[in-house]
Amino acid sequence: MERDVDRLERVVAALQDGGFDALVCALPANVLLLSGYWPVIGSAIAVVTREGRVALLAPADERDLAESGWADDLRTFQPGGLTELVDVPTAAAEPFAALLRAAGLGGVKARVAFEGGGAMEPASYVSLHVYGGAMRTLLENAMRGVQLADGSELIARLRAVKTRREIACIARSCSVAERAFSAGATHVMANASERAIAAAFAAGLEVEARGEERSGGFVFCMSGPDAARAGKAYARSGAREMEQGEVALVHCNSHVGGYWTDITRCYCAGAPDAPAQDVYDAVFEARAAALDALRPGARARDVDRAARTVLERRGYGRAFTHGTGHGVGFAAINHNAMPRVHPASPDILEPGMVFNIEPAVYLDGVTGIRHCDVVALGDRGATLLTPFHTSIGELARA
Amino acid sequence: MERDVDRLERVVAALQDGGFDALVCALPANVLLLSGYWPVIGSAIAVVTREGRVALLAPADERDLAESGWADDLRTFQPGGLTELVDVPTAAAEPFAALLRAAGLGGVKARVAFEGGGAMEPASYVSLHVYGGAMRTLLENAMRGVQLADGSELIARLRAVKTRREIACIARSCSVAERAFSAGATHVMANASERAIAAAFAAGLEVEARGEERSGGFVFCMSGPDAARAGKAYARSGAREMEQGEVALVHCNSHVGGYWTDITRCYCAGAPDAPAQDVYDAVFEARAAALDALRPGARARDVDRAARTVLERRGYGRAFTHGTGHGVGFAAINHNAMPRVHPASPDILEPGMVFNIEPAVYLDGVTGIRHCDVVALGDRGATLLTPFHTSIGELARA
Repeated sequence: MERDVDRLERVVAALQDGGFDALVCALPANVLLLSGYWPVIGSAIAVVTREGRVALLAPADERDLAESGWADDLRTFQPGGLTELVDVPTAAAEPFAALLRAAGLGGVKARVAFEGGGAMEPASYVSLHVYGGAMRTLLENAMRGVQLADGSELIARLRAVKTRREIACIARSCSVAERAFSAGATHVMANASERAIAAAFAAGLEVEARGEERSGGFVFCMSGPDAARAGKAYARSGAREMEQGEVALVHCNSHVGGYWTDITRCYCAGAPDAPAQDVYDAVFEARAAALDALRPGARARDVDRAARTVLERRGYGRAFTHGTGHGVGFAAINHNAMPRVHPASPDILEPGMVFNIEPAVYLDGVTGIRHCDVVALGDRGATLLTPFHTSIGELARA
Repeated sequence: MERDVDRLERVVAALQDGGFDALVCALPANVLLLSGYWPVIGSAIAVVTREGRVALLAPADERDLAESGWADDLRTFQPGGLTELVDVPTAAAEPFAALLRAAGLGGVKARVAFEGGGAMEPASYVSLHVYGGAMRTLLENAMRGVQLADGSELIARLRAVKTRREIACIARSCSVAERAFSAGATHVMANASERAIAAAFAAGLEVEARGEERSGGFVFCMSGPDAARAGKAYARSGAREMEQGEVALVHCNSHVGGYWTDITRCYCAGAPDAPAQDVYDAVFEARAAALDALRPGARARDVDRAARTVLERRGYGRAFTHGTGHGVGFAAINHNAMPRVHPASPDILEPGMVFNIEPAVYLDGVTGIRHCDVVALGDRGATLLTPFHTSIGELARA
């Protein structure tokens, strides 16, 4: 893959601004950011120097994937095999040290930013290798006198503003999700269980990905009064069967090649009853207000305010229990991903930011309705990357 | 939930043997091990003292799940909300310090084992919070003069031998998978795509979990010559459509409540051709040899040898590119989980160990056949937790 020149320029600028010689990342989403390669198992390590050189250590089994990125120096290592049992940090140590030496980082008192803090990492596979505390040891052993700094803030800022290429990747991911939602929606009906509805959407994600090399996702469905709990930090489908006139909240985080979506639609089995209709109307009005407030230079908190004002005016202020949005793309459900469209956010919207807009009303014991879109901000305004099922007419299933 | 007395006794014994005052874990599988509660987001922290006291910090949104475990002291914290934006380690710091003080660990020069090394963590949700390097800082700030030691080895040994309760949980997880395989197998047929077949099995996992509070899983399907690549450290479904007489290798890692399975079945569209029939026969003979070698006190490498000898004798020695098995239950695909049924393994089989037996033959450009079961070792021998689709007759689909 041709290197994403915009991305590398931004990384180099951030390193120079921070006075760093290199940035080292092992969490898959960050390796994708730096090298265009999305690791599967989580054992790869990417290094970018302040000269913009990209060095990459990948497990041998992922060589073909790693080659699809733009690393200048790609080396592989073998964690295991039939002749020995060895853990990943042990297997990576020597090849990683050699990679750093070749990048000119071995013999100097380098100043290196790395993943020193907590992180929210999207699931890349059934199991994820995390270096955890072992990364500091690896770096200290490989670079004598290295000065390590927590690069979490630097990385978060880099991830917030996408390049043209990255926006195209997220848009492609949203397109697969759109086809999956179209296929899944035909399974929303009275007497269907939440699990069966979720499975139909998940099957759509799988099948509609067609020839994509890598894709996947998570879906949950919560129906009727259960949907009121969908605003919590986690949620899940149950065995409940939906009834005529009830709402099924379907939420999906899916990816193509590691570029994530964050989408919610609320379908109704038949026409919504009067209370649900009122909530739908309020959520759509709040959505329109938020979308209308999107422009470069806007304060993210003002976008939140626009949506929240509508819901407060319509009597649902307390039922909107979370922020209006957060960064999406390299993150799946990280509410701290910039820009945080939230009452306490200091963030200013910039061209290239990709985030969700998710006004919602959760009424305990009654219903929950959220409509979550992904938008990309351009120089003049926002592009909706999820332009489907956007009215009651499309969401109410016969 | 009533505490798992066996589990806590083992943790206490390990702490006393190692001279530790406490064990602190935040990776979800380890929190499950220590407290009976499987965190969703990954922000919870569990502490067990050498007196066997279990203290737990959980995010407020997971309180009901945390209450289902057996913590003696359960406290919650709120990472975020509408009034402030705060990251997880920052939000956890003060309540975590208070939890440690209440456990008698605040004022002394405690010796504490924690997750200081690399780890393979099964996916618990669409996104996982990892404390990474932040955990060391949290511990050092909360306990003046604390002596931290990497507890990775101690934790790995604790995870290797399951209690009676844990084996029952894994067996329940295998039962859901069995129903999913029965449902999915009806979708294996000529002209079906790998993605469509995988989706059918995944839908089975969802629907057949019925009233289980939490469940999930990953499935991939690789057909014909593609299946030869299923032995690598990662694998995935593609758009390829299978043909009559070809093999579809279906692999699944699924869980109920965080107790994981690891299952592979190779179905055939119609009767296998002669070369495939020979490979099936060899794999089943190797499986029988491995199962026959299972007993407490056996060397894990001898079990590998038993399976490998069969495949070597039948001319497939080089085509069996990985070990015969590894620990399963708290791990999904960790080839270093004990017991490692591998040529270089130092492990001795003990009652309570749960692991997979996965003899396989991968023939580049031709086919791949693996049969992967989960077994639990008892005092007298092994119990097969996946006793389904175990013959060509059941695996060849009309």
